Amino acid sequence: MPSRKPPPSALGSADETEAQFYEALQQGDIERLMAAWADDEEIVCVHPGGPRLVGIAAVRAAFESMFSHGTIDAHPERVRRLQSPMSAVHSVLERVNLMTPEGPRSAWVIATNVYQKTPQGWRLVAHHASPGLQDEPAEAAQASSVLH
Amino acid sequence: MPSRKPPPSALGSADETEAQFYEALQQGDIERLMAAWADDEEIVCVHPGGPRLVGIAAVRAAFESMFSHGTIDAHPERVRRLQSPMSAVHSVLERVNLMTPEGPRSAWVIATNVYQKTPQGWRLVAHHASPGLQDEPAEAAQASSVLH
Repeated sequence: MPSRKPPPSALGSADETEAQFYEALQQGDIERLMAAWADDEEIVCVHPGGPRLVGIAAVRAAFESMFSHGTIDAHPERVRRLQSPMSAVHSVLERVNLMTPEGPRSAWVIATNVYQKTPQGWRLVAHHASPGLQDEPAEAAQASSVLH
Repeated sequence: MPSRKPPPSALGSADETEAQFYEALQQGDIERLMAAWADDEEIVCVHPGGPRLVGIAAVRAAFESMFSHGTIDAHPERVRRLQSPMSAVHSVLERVNLMTPEGPRSAWVIATNVYQKTPQGWRLVAHHASPGLQDEPAEAAQASSVLH
């Protein structure tokens, strides 16, 4: 008699892993979220305006802290992909829907997601997100006066 | 008679490419800087507080704009590495030395650098840097109230 236990998520592509990551953010599902990450103590996560988080425990603790305040209605848009056989870099513009005292608003976050192909499928190894913008970010604009 | 032209930089490791990238920033050397990047129209660069820059022309234009104001005295420190056979992710804390009206100061930038092994050696494909902090960033701290 076959087991009724569903097979673990295959995560057969970086796109599938990315979809799982953002769905888990929207659902506030910490287990599903962490299952998108590689089981590697060198994983790195930088939230907008936050410190560098290295390792599974630190990354998990930060997401648990966020989920204690609610879910995150973030949607990846305008994905640009750099694909190689064992790794992928996705640059996404995240549209984050927020409820504010003035009603619903969207903010934009520029994020870089890096995936590696592991024996357990494609997994997230780095997520770096910059502070949100109220306006949709311009593309390929000339950088103005920035630190570097 | 052998050519006297020096061989192109081998860029035999992600570390070598990273060293070239930061040396070129310090020297304001646009050709050396761009030689550290992959020859790929999907390369991505996000400067602190800046827009997403995609492609060689946009990335080059932003660095040329910066160099028109001076060199960038940025030094990668506390590098964390995720290495795979054909790609590498380096998370660095950049110490950026600045001259201010109050004298010399250091600012800190959190940067994620992604490298891929190409036929021309290890090349940078993504550089994502977050706005600088005046204090040395804490490590693995619990994220406070952030957008996500």
